[in-house]
Amino acid sequence: MATDAQRACFEAGIKFGSLYHQFAGTPVSPESARSLEVAMAEAIENQPFCASVSVEIHDDRVEDAIDHANDYTELTGSLMDVEMRIDYDGVVVDTRMEMVDGYPLMELVSVAEGDADRDG
Amino acid sequence: MATDAQRACFEAGIKFGSLYHQFAGTPVSPESARSLEVAMAEAIENQPFCASVSVEIHDDRVEDAIDHANDYTELTGSLMDVEMRIDYDGVVVDTRMEMVDGYPLMELVSVAEGDADRDG
Amino acid sequence: MATDAQRACFEAGIKFGSLYHQFAGTPVSPESARSLEVAMAEAIENQPFCASVSVEIHDDRVEDAIDHANDYTELTGSLMDVEMRIDYDGVVVDTRMEMVDGYPLMELVSVAEGDADRDG
Amino acid sequence: MATDAQRACFEAGIKFGSLYHQFAGTPVSPESARSLEVAMAEAIENQPFCASVSVEIHDDRVEDAIDHANDYTELTGSLMDVEMRIDYDGVVVDTRMEMVDGYPLMELVSVAEGDADRDG
Repeated sequence: MATDAQRACFEAGIKFGSLYHQFAGTPVSPESARSLEVAMAEAIENQPFCASVSVEIHDDRVEDAIDHANDYTELTGSLMDVEMRIDYDGVVVDTRMEMVDGYPLMELVSVAEGDADRDG
Repeated sequence: MATDAQRACFEAGIKFGSLYHQFAGTPVSPESARSLEVAMAEAIENQPFCASVSVEIHDDRVEDAIDHANDYTELTGSLMDVEMRIDYDGVVVDTRMEMVDGYPLMELVSVAEGDADRDG
Repeated sequence: MATDAQRACFEAGIKFGSLYHQFAGTPVSPESARSLEVAMAEAIENQPFCASVSVEIHDDRVEDAIDHANDYTELTGSLMDVEMRIDYDGVVVDTRMEMVDGYPLMELVSVAEGDADRDG
Repeated sequence: MATDAQRACFEAGIKFGSLYHQFAGTPVSPESARSLEVAMAEAIENQPFCASVSVEIHDDRVEDAIDHANDYTELTGSLMDVEMRIDYDGVVVDTRMEMVDGYPLMELVSVAEGDADRDG
């Protein structure tokens, strides 16, 4: 019913929603941002068809978000950029989340069907 | 770069990953299952392009998962069925999560491009 | 090693941390706030020693937090008041989370040892 | 109304509930367990009055929990031991979560009021 490319995009979305809603709200500071970046990437890379994940938490945005009473803030989409590659039976989907007009946007960057599919 | 149908499937995946990882781990019993079903559906229906969500938590599975020491368990995918409809610019995607061979599986049920697109 | 009153306060804290980090990040709008309030309260009331929970999500704060591009925001502590009563072997602990100086603060309101203990 | 020792125990509970419900459900495998341990500890150490956190995810339990279809499982309390020290105005509270009779139990290990308080 669905094509392999559509299934690949569905899988890519699952990973994005998972990453975001698993980790949003995590206490974060510049001191703890590096370990959180690695853990987020390695956790989501466990999921099926997930070829690679990179997470960059911007320390300057974290600093700006820290309130007067504490030395940390809670992770939200506006503090980080995420790039993710899904490989679903040879269909490679690249996605990213980044700030657009002041809001975090998850988007498909490219959907590339592999040689096996093109020859098939 | 991506087609509307692929974007619709990406959006569908985001909603599934969001629902699962936002609510997995929530304490649940047969007494609280009804309110959780409604809250999960209404929360995710807020997200862009999400036409409808239904969540059914199976009380018998909840009962089976409750341990001896407490009267509740934690929500996991194996306790519920989820159906979701995404409408992305006229592309309607139906998805569901249900138990297959003892494991919860998220899957695309159908991807239907609307008249507007076919006529365009 | 610890007193019953101390254990009661520990249990109260567990419930607060659970409620906050389970549900922070949930998509919320004035339309979905009522079902989320009920689900949060009933979910946490499942936990041991939790006598009652009430959650009030302030629609005016939700409206203020909604950005231009969407019709919803994500749940944070600044959008809600929470009251909780723990009853641990006759020690009754009342707690609340509310905005103080612009920030959400979780606090012990009272710790009352019951008759059984006072007579003991 | 509450004593410093009671407030210290309340704070200890908050950290435990936070850690558990923030990270429960995270995809985990033996390969990603080390980075998750570090990120969990450093995230919660950001919170007020949290002196130290250590998290040990048991690879053998992770292996046992991995199902046939995937190479990962989801983090639950039964897969890890957690120790945490809270220091609230000189009251030092040690807590841990570990398996007791097959179930994860969060418990107060000790509550020690410091010299400043005893002299005061």
